[in-house]
Amino acid sequence: MIGIAVVGYGYWGPNLVRNIADCRNAKLVAVCDLRKERLTAVSARYPSVQISDDFEQVLANPAVDAVAIATPVSSHFRLAMRAMMAGKHVFIEKPIASSVEEAQKLVEEAARRNLVLAVDHTFVHTGAVKKMHELVHNGLGDIYYYDSVRVNLGLFQHDVSVIWDLAVHDLSIMDYVLNERPVAVSAAGMSHVPGQPANIAYLNLFFPGNLIAHIHVNWLAPVKVRRTLIGGSNKMIVYDDLEPSEKIKVYDKGITVKEGEAQRENVYQQLVGYRSGDMWAPHLDMTEALSGELSEFADCVMNKKTPTADGHAGLRVVRILEAATQSLAQRGRVIELDEVRRVA
Amino acid sequence: MIGIAVVGYGYWGPNLVRNIADCRNAKLVAVCDLRKERLTAVSARYPSVQISDDFEQVLANPAVDAVAIATPVSSHFRLAMRAMMAGKHVFIEKPIASSVEEAQKLVEEAARRNLVLAVDHTFVHTGAVKKMHELVHNGLGDIYYYDSVRVNLGLFQHDVSVIWDLAVHDLSIMDYVLNERPVAVSAAGMSHVPGQPANIAYLNLFFPGNLIAHIHVNWLAPVKVRRTLIGGSNKMIVYDDLEPSEKIKVYDKGITVKEGEAQRENVYQQLVGYRSGDMWAPHLDMTEALSGELSEFADCVMNKKTPTADGHAGLRVVRILEAATQSLAQRGRVIELDEVRRVA
Amino acid sequence: MIGIAVVGYGYWGPNLVRNIADCRNAKLVAVCDLRKERLTAVSARYPSVQISDDFEQVLANPAVDAVAIATPVSSHFRLAMRAMMAGKHVFIEKPIASSVEEAQKLVEEAARRNLVLAVDHTFVHTGAVKKMHELVHNGLGDIYYYDSVRVNLGLFQHDVSVIWDLAVHDLSIMDYVLNERPVAVSAAGMSHVPGQPANIAYLNLFFPGNLIAHIHVNWLAPVKVRRTLIGGSNKMIVYDDLEPSEKIKVYDKGITVKEGEAQRENVYQQLVGYRSGDMWAPHLDMTEALSGELSEFADCVMNKKTPTADGHAGLRVVRILEAATQSLAQRGRVIELDEVRRVA
Amino acid sequence: MIGIAVVGYGYWGPNLVRNIADCRNAKLVAVCDLRKERLTAVSARYPSVQISDDFEQVLANPAVDAVAIATPVSSHFRLAMRAMMAGKHVFIEKPIASSVEEAQKLVEEAARRNLVLAVDHTFVHTGAVKKMHELVHNGLGDIYYYDSVRVNLGLFQHDVSVIWDLAVHDLSIMDYVLNERPVAVSAAGMSHVPGQPANIAYLNLFFPGNLIAHIHVNWLAPVKVRRTLIGGSNKMIVYDDLEPSEKIKVYDKGITVKEGEAQRENVYQQLVGYRSGDMWAPHLDMTEALSGELSEFADCVMNKKTPTADGHAGLRVVRILEAATQSLAQRGRVIELDEVRRVA
Repeated sequence: MIGIAVVGYGYWGPNLVRNIADCRNAKLVAVCDLRKERLTAVSARYPSVQISDDFEQVLANPAVDAVAIATPVSSHFRLAMRAMMAGKHVFIEKPIASSVEEAQKLVEEAARRNLVLAVDHTFVHTGAVKKMHELVHNGLGDIYYYDSVRVNLGLFQHDVSVIWDLAVHDLSIMDYVLNERPVAVSAAGMSHVPGQPANIAYLNLFFPGNLIAHIHVNWLAPVKVRRTLIGGSNKMIVYDDLEPSEKIKVYDKGITVKEGEAQRENVYQQLVGYRSGDMWAPHLDMTEALSGELSEFADCVMNKKTPTADGHAGLRVVRILEAATQSLAQRGRVIELDEVRRVA
Repeated sequence: MIGIAVVGYGYWGPNLVRNIADCRNAKLVAVCDLRKERLTAVSARYPSVQISDDFEQVLANPAVDAVAIATPVSSHFRLAMRAMMAGKHVFIEKPIASSVEEAQKLVEEAARRNLVLAVDHTFVHTGAVKKMHELVHNGLGDIYYYDSVRVNLGLFQHDVSVIWDLAVHDLSIMDYVLNERPVAVSAAGMSHVPGQPANIAYLNLFFPGNLIAHIHVNWLAPVKVRRTLIGGSNKMIVYDDLEPSEKIKVYDKGITVKEGEAQRENVYQQLVGYRSGDMWAPHLDMTEALSGELSEFADCVMNKKTPTADGHAGLRVVRILEAATQSLAQRGRVIELDEVRRVA
Repeated sequence: MIGIAVVGYGYWGPNLVRNIADCRNAKLVAVCDLRKERLTAVSARYPSVQISDDFEQVLANPAVDAVAIATPVSSHFRLAMRAMMAGKHVFIEKPIASSVEEAQKLVEEAARRNLVLAVDHTFVHTGAVKKMHELVHNGLGDIYYYDSVRVNLGLFQHDVSVIWDLAVHDLSIMDYVLNERPVAVSAAGMSHVPGQPANIAYLNLFFPGNLIAHIHVNWLAPVKVRRTLIGGSNKMIVYDDLEPSEKIKVYDKGITVKEGEAQRENVYQQLVGYRSGDMWAPHLDMTEALSGELSEFADCVMNKKTPTADGHAGLRVVRILEAATQSLAQRGRVIELDEVRRVA
Repeated sequence: MIGIAVVGYGYWGPNLVRNIADCRNAKLVAVCDLRKERLTAVSARYPSVQISDDFEQVLANPAVDAVAIATPVSSHFRLAMRAMMAGKHVFIEKPIASSVEEAQKLVEEAARRNLVLAVDHTFVHTGAVKKMHELVHNGLGDIYYYDSVRVNLGLFQHDVSVIWDLAVHDLSIMDYVLNERPVAVSAAGMSHVPGQPANIAYLNLFFPGNLIAHIHVNWLAPVKVRRTLIGGSNKMIVYDDLEPSEKIKVYDKGITVKEGEAQRENVYQQLVGYRSGDMWAPHLDMTEALSGELSEFADCVMNKKTPTADGHAGLRVVRILEAATQSLAQRGRVIELDEVRRVA
């Protein structure tokens, strides 16, 4: 059992607080927020929990083993560094930081101090995404493409573009599900509100082999779509997160390439054959992702293990976000990911 | 009433033949194909029609006012030029030609000889696309984005990429529906069959203002999707061609930008408001597109009018196809469309 | 502003409590439940509210103007009668009582004492059902049929059949939406758990004219369906409650009957023509139904008005439930509704 | 190889003709219709086939081994009897005849003469229905219910009700798929066109055990639905015939009844548990049903075998249609099926 303090009780913080309060191997010790009225709300619900508007005071509490940070992105780095300097393990809302440089420093600090650094890539802990991970590693064959659409109307944000707000989900899922890492990124997009960041964007991710990935995010769509296609040489997946229960459908479909066969004259004559078999929607674990995620974090702290989404995962995602942002400003110029690194 | 000869009785030719035979202002005069067994099939069905495997013989028939070409793309240019030299009006399967250079020569030749040159952008004549055209010109407001997905399993082609096979539909629809013309293109894609053209591709189209367009085409998808979103400042459209009747849905949804209003601290505080009203699926004309299209062509020939999809439309689409093909080979480098022109 | 006491803090009670606590013209005064631990849960959340396991104590509180009853159906009658005898207005969970006899006595008692008696037919206060009511009264023309399907897997109940559990929703919606009242009922159904009430049932409702209604309820379906069709002579409605926003679709479709026209020999020759126009999904008020419903109840108490779903509505629904239950036991024998009345 | 004559070249006849012409073990010998222009249409397409407006002439042709009847139902009996008297095997459009009496005489005549009598229950030969048959016999467990909805707008018929037009499909499918036979029927319905047969109907079918079946048919629905649910003790099926490929979905869902367990007080305390597993959509044979059906018929004629849908199947379906028609006229009175028999 570890003691956790939550910093930031705004939109996401209450979910962390509720799940930690119910966690079998963690204890909610303290909640910190600058707004008094938010702290009052915590006390009404959890009278025995320490509340404070002073982060240092929380860090000074010896019952606090770890800090869960749910503040705006711009403050992640500063708060996480302070927590680690005070010897606390850290769990940070996604994205882990607002730049590659910051993310890299966090990873280094955690390594130096031998602390657990986890990033809250929540989807990675859903039954649907865990099932995709399993299928990609066993059943799909060679992965040909990863295509994701995440569009709806609102909520426009004024400090980050739709890439940092929505694509971050797809990138964190993709980072977990695929074995391979992209080497380059391009992004095209547009803002339709003067002076504001892009509200529609299309990302291409290039890999060493013949895998290609694409992410479409949009805050200004008339319908809500949350759909990912993964094409493999043996099977293909459709992941529709808006389906109430059959979120994952596995299609036994594909092509068979006839080798060594001559082909002539006719455009419809093919060396490609089609295979169409059963479709299967596996039963999924529907327990709340955040609950398993926090329990895994507590377990990692207690047993010196590495979380599924560690600081490195957080850094990889931020590197793509940063590269995509650069690319978007240059009308889709391809950015090599190893260019996007900490300036020494 | 004009007389039409159809050249090429393979996959699409029979549709032309059937619709011309039923056309109120055109007469099916001749059918030409190199394969005897295809001509036999024509005679069984249309005993009074001239059949021939010799294109010159067909052109020599004075009852032939116009030629409809439904042969492989590589032969479009040669056959259309010959027909125009013989004084015949021309209707060509999409894409109009296999290069910008060819398409431009066809346009010039038609202009020089004062002949009607039409390209068979069939979708442009469907009730759904005509309705979108009408809405874009009256009701949607400023157009923010045009996003289209056209994916399914098969049919792989070995002579052209998925861009020339599938995106050609979206480009011809977009060319008709939007008022604005793209200035640059980029495309990323991949081939998953060694030695073959790309079977998956993502196209970005850049316009002078803040309109952005995107097309996703894929021959290797587990599900069939035919869906276009058009976002306007007043309304938005979802066009789903797989819907049996409600193919067009118009959403009275959007954002309202509050001007001159200060915004501070809170990430969820917005200068953007959301508007959500009724959805409306207009009743559509469901008559076969090809029928209206051929009748319009005959009318243009008789009355010296310009068809909806003329040679210039055909050329504009081929210019984008050629630019996208170049871009795809360079991992998505942006190609300015005015670079892609006839080499003098 | 009226004071309300909630009796029963089980499945539905917390929803009543939350909405009363937030109500602009009602005040949550007391909560009554036999289970101590439920009352503790109330106090934690609403420290200033009176809690009690003694209903008489609650009735003795002069701040209590009205009682909201959310206990098992078998206790509705006894509690409501006691409350009215104590001069309290009453709001009762659906179904209003467990028999026509009980329901009739409640209606009479409320009339005698001039008290407001409301039944919690929650759906009647949703934006979707209010829109249907409006359309049926203005736009649909003559109503031809009302067809509803409400099926899913679980929750089996052991004290009432699926008719009392699920069809009660459809009957209360239908009672509100239609102008006409059924005169007879038949029901077929089956139990698939030995010794338990029916888990699948089909109800027919007969009306004086050519309107017919049908309700299909099932606790043992592999998929969840909540769909109502209403056919009118001018327009038709599809109400799908599982749609997140476009719950109501109005179809400008129908038939036109050619009068005075002879018809002969050919089975496909018709005197019936078809009309197919636009489809329209009106924007709906999405505020929580229970909130408006409780506010209306408070308003009725304060201003001596009759609620939308009053005791008579509750009685009409129970009469159909009782008749359907009788019919089901006799393999669908038609039961005239005026047979199902209070035994004097 | 057998020779077949088709009688009736109206709506369905051309499908029979086309499939017989392509059949591996049957030969199209003659086509008979009273309308000269229909026979001309046959000759244009099949020049070598005998055409005639005289049924006796066709029966006199020794190359005709069997007759396929696709005329209006009212003439089925007369034509089929004549054909059998001439020693011809018979294949009849559904429903096999217009009354139980007629159908029974046909069955007896075929037995007496040792001729093959088949009824064209086309759906029974689709991949989807064959898969359901297989699953019901192996995998679903005890069958609890069979529920089918077949609704759309039009085509109203003036000589038969919607039961004879649409429910005949469901009844023929159900007859094939289920092991059990219904013992009684009730039907409620309504006509909305004065003087015309019912255009909406609801059928209940009662079986000896705890299986119940229900069919909803409607010519006046705003949307097209073709959906059947089959609930079994082990698995459940959803059959949606409008799905382009995944027509059959098998759900590993159901209930588990805890035996011998006491249950008390709490209405939500159950002796019923829920089981929710994978969903699976088996790949289906998509070849045209009529092709396999005609080939089976030819095989039965040649090898003295009984077709899947023989005269007895046709009779069973007509018995239910007749009983349902009687019941509908009596507002849903239950009709025992063994009452509905040939009057000696």
